[in-house]
Amino acid sequence: MKISVVKDILDASARIAEENRLYFKENQIMVINLMSSPGSGKTTLLEKTIGALKNKVRIGVIEGDIQSTYDAERIQKTGAPVVQINTGGACHLDGNMIREALKKMDIKDLDILFIENVGNLVCPASFNLGENFKVVILSVAEGDDKPLKYPLIFQESSALIINKMDLLPFCDCNPELIEERALKINPQLAVFRVSLRTGERLEKWIDWVKQRVSSR
Amino acid sequence: MKISVVKDILDASARIAEENRLYFKENQIMVINLMSSPGSGKTTLLEKTIGALKNKVRIGVIEGDIQSTYDAERIQKTGAPVVQINTGGACHLDGNMIREALKKMDIKDLDILFIENVGNLVCPASFNLGENFKVVILSVAEGDDKPLKYPLIFQESSALIINKMDLLPFCDCNPELIEERALKINPQLAVFRVSLRTGERLEKWIDWVKQRVSSR
Repeated sequence: MKISVVKDILDASARIAEENRLYFKENQIMVINLMSSPGSGKTTLLEKTIGALKNKVRIGVIEGDIQSTYDAERIQKTGAPVVQINTGGACHLDGNMIREALKKMDIKDLDILFIENVGNLVCPASFNLGENFKVVILSVAEGDDKPLKYPLIFQESSALIINKMDLLPFCDCNPELIEERALKINPQLAVFRVSLRTGERLEKWIDWVKQRVSSR
Repeated sequence: MKISVVKDILDASARIAEENRLYFKENQIMVINLMSSPGSGKTTLLEKTIGALKNKVRIGVIEGDIQSTYDAERIQKTGAPVVQINTGGACHLDGNMIREALKKMDIKDLDILFIENVGNLVCPASFNLGENFKVVILSVAEGDDKPLKYPLIFQESSALIINKMDLLPFCDCNPELIEERALKINPQLAVFRVSLRTGERLEKWIDWVKQRVSSR
């Protein structure tokens, strides 16, 4: 008697992420999953990126937080459509949460959807949401050993934004080392050194986003 | 027929944490579980605390990281006994990992055991290790909205250390607001504002530790 072998079956989370991916593709929208430790600058990056691009491309945002709507309120002020996910304790977003949030957002008229994950350098890296690109932010105040200690998020990401360069003179951090260590894990990583507080050095990041959205 | 009801059974993780707690109590050791985002200053706090106390109390350290032994190497230089746990991907320590680590450390001659959790403001808050006190560190570079967005860790902790006060002039952060928001969640929280980089304002934290170890 032949034994049935069931293989390559995606688990529920991966299956829903794949459904999201197809839905995003049908709607010709580029999706970026933004990840970092708490307070590294995810919401500020979104505010500045929306500000820089809003006359050129249409941007929507899904905000992920354990609770509260503070980040969504900040995004709302930019004029971009925003939906807040409250995970109620969960430390990362998953594909199903995104599917639920998409019921509250009309993506047909959008070019880019940014998903701001829960502030956490660990867990979000393990969950696909159906996005095109993962982007990780690291602040120089966090130190230059983070790629060594949290390698998965650097491995999974397409871009690394090294933020708070304005704090560099006051921190024991060498951004060259961050870059070297991150590129050793993932040689394809695009690296941007910026200061979101002052708005400096954002041009290359904005160009990276523009290039990807025009070639989608 | 009477239906059997099984209740108040601790799950494996909670049961092992309780066994750890009893083991610590038998050995008259005070145990502090140190938690924060990546790069807020956990290892530096340990270095400075060991330095300030080492002629008075005997301190051991369990270091938790996803991978690597960088933090354990830093602690080793202070002369304190240290065991490194590599979680291999897990985003927090649990009671069983501590039980395994304790096989490698003789706690009989120690007064204090510090456990440095994985850098993560979310998941570690949900797991008891058998410790006497949880302590959370937050850097002013992370912003003053963190208690609003990650309340559980502030609720579970006995002390909050607001670190990197030397960066305050260069950050959009109000430590009064951090304190007010954290105390609203947990009015019993002891709050210390320090600069671990400069070593300033550490005395009150050191006193807090000394008082607790002498009354254990």
